[in-house]
Amino acid sequence: MTNRRGLLIILSSPSGAGKSTLSKRLIEWDPDISFSVSATTRKPREGEVNGQDYYFKSHNEFESLVKNGEMLEHAQVFDNFYGSPKGPVEYAINAGHDVLFDIDWQGGQQVRASALGKHVLSIFILPPSILELERRLKTRAQDSNEVIAGRMVKSRDEISHWPEYDFVLVNDDLNETFGRLKTIISAERLRISQQPELVDIVRTLNNEFEGRP
Amino acid sequence: MTNRRGLLIILSSPSGAGKSTLSKRLIEWDPDISFSVSATTRKPREGEVNGQDYYFKSHNEFESLVKNGEMLEHAQVFDNFYGSPKGPVEYAINAGHDVLFDIDWQGGQQVRASALGKHVLSIFILPPSILELERRLKTRAQDSNEVIAGRMVKSRDEISHWPEYDFVLVNDDLNETFGRLKTIISAERLRISQQPELVDIVRTLNNEFEGRP
Repeated sequence: MTNRRGLLIILSSPSGAGKSTLSKRLIEWDPDISFSVSATTRKPREGEVNGQDYYFKSHNEFESLVKNGEMLEHAQVFDNFYGSPKGPVEYAINAGHDVLFDIDWQGGQQVRASALGKHVLSIFILPPSILELERRLKTRAQDSNEVIAGRMVKSRDEISHWPEYDFVLVNDDLNETFGRLKTIISAERLRISQQPELVDIVRTLNNEFEGRP
Repeated sequence: MTNRRGLLIILSSPSGAGKSTLSKRLIEWDPDISFSVSATTRKPREGEVNGQDYYFKSHNEFESLVKNGEMLEHAQVFDNFYGSPKGPVEYAINAGHDVLFDIDWQGGQQVRASALGKHVLSIFILPPSILELERRLKTRAQDSNEVIAGRMVKSRDEISHWPEYDFVLVNDDLNETFGRLKTIISAERLRISQQPELVDIVRTLNNEFEGRP
């Protein structure tokens, strides 16, 4: 039986809207969904494993990956590059696994425009309110006020790109939003493009028509 | 708040695959889904109500509806015409209701090609096997062997059009298939095209950004 081809699931949102929690829950929910492992030029931190947390690359290696069209998307953050290598994603979706991308609108645009763009399912998570978004960032208590202010500016920019996505969920209630995410992914798998086995099923039905008494 | 625009839900299948039961369950499940009432030139039967069971039309009336582009699809069956009038469907979807079409591939093609084609969600139901399909037609015990044989020929033709649909469900188990139908419709309503209220939601979020202390 032919495997379905996996989906590239893009999940974007301003930070604090619940994206990380929802992503983790998705991975736990279905072993057929895995995170896209990013490549980066930054140095590995204590305990980080190459190929699991990141693919650690030199600047030269990263540049040649980009030049050879082997990155689905990439961006520069200060002095370092980050990006999503195409190879592992292609391998996963050809084996019938979905790959989850926790990326921003710029990454989303690049992945949609890539060779694997037609396999993209993109979902944007909106916060119920901006005060709530700011409150969540502050209660994390991991960032300075300056960093939070910067995130809020980036959030506004991020939110402005919601119309580029297939689906938008307003994350009022985490359980409800997670339920909707599962509904979207479950439905998408019932599309004919996600059921290559239909060709064989219909061939069998036709043979049965021929073989009837 | 802006209403979402309803969907034209096309459900097609060979007869005996479970389409009628699934349609009835959908209508019961969600009061926002209603059947498209067909127009026909055939005479009303005992107890049939105009505008509820059918819109009963004279041949002349029907022809002028077709000529004026007021039928989403139509077909001739022996001496009578049957079809789906556009007006009531437009009215329903503009009020945020989904309209369910129990039509064959020929009707499906016409509705997709119509002015409302971009609001179509189309689902094809396959039987688990042809023997099972024939068994179901026979146990209905309402048709002669000749009629059943005719239906089987039509079934084969109908099945050959599965690739024209958005989704295909193999109806192995009625409850499971119904669950999948609900999943597909629930997911479709989360598409940005089905959530016109997002524009207002994002406007409110932007105002909150402006108004922060």
